[in-house]
Amino acid sequence: MDPQGERSVSEIISELEKAWNVADGAAFARNFAEDADFVNIRGEYFRTRGAIARGHQGIFDTIYKGSNVQYQRIGLRALVTGGLLPHVKSTLKVPSGPLAGEHNSVFTMVVVEFQGSWRIAAFHNTLVVKGPTAVSTL
Amino acid sequence: MDPQGERSVSEIISELEKAWNVADGAAFARNFAEDADFVNIRGEYFRTRGAIARGHQGIFDTIYKGSNVQYQRIGLRALVTGGLLPHVKSTLKVPSGPLAGEHNSVFTMVVVEFQGSWRIAAFHNTLVVKGPTAVSTL
Repeated sequence: MDPQGERSVSEIISELEKAWNVADGAAFARNFAEDADFVNIRGEYFRTRGAIARGHQGIFDTIYKGSNVQYQRIGLRALVTGGLLPHVKSTLKVPSGPLAGEHNSVFTMVVVEFQGSWRIAAFHNTLVVKGPTAVSTL
Repeated sequence: MDPQGERSVSEIISELEKAWNVADGAAFARNFAEDADFVNIRGEYFRTRGAIARGHQGIFDTIYKGSNVQYQRIGLRALVTGGLLPHVKSTLKVPSGPLAGEHNSVFTMVVVEFQGSWRIAAFHNTLVVKGPTAVSTL
């Protein structure tokens, strides 16, 4: 795996976390490619860094106000030359409001090299459903 | 965009749909890379084609028995050389059991060229939450 790419993925995850925890939508979006794709926990599909910045600022200012997130990388591999695939577990603590409590999710990112730097090309997030099921629901 | 890659993505989506609708887990998994990553609608993270085949056979035989799925491609772009990023909307109709009814989801795939053929390297699925929210929840 490209060592610079691997370092960049670690930095990106750390910067996403920091940006969330200071409620800065533009900073959260900074590591996304201009034409990035984003699917959120409600199955809503967004495009572009600007939409990702605005959407996050919206939730930082309202339903997730005062929240704290911690990210843990649970997977990373090379896809193709210039393309890495990290998987991350998120633990989000929301202090108040309709979503008060702790929420876990798992997201997939596709991180690609573009003009010498690594950017998030795609991000897809799913809430972890609590409790057992008879079979694992794919 | 690589025209052969684009055709392959269309074929892959069609074959996934057909495999689901005849409840064949091995056929569903056939277009995945051996080391593919998969995150399901419960936020559960799986690896390998074999796990994807077994997991799907499990749900085809139980909670999704007799179900019918329709896929609609809602996005496709090139990521890097040899890497494509399709987004797909899924409409699943389940005839009976605890999940009876219609379920919509959106999934991201990463499709990569490997030894002259295109394979799904990563798949991530999220249920579409029904109903409006005050802000779009990213």
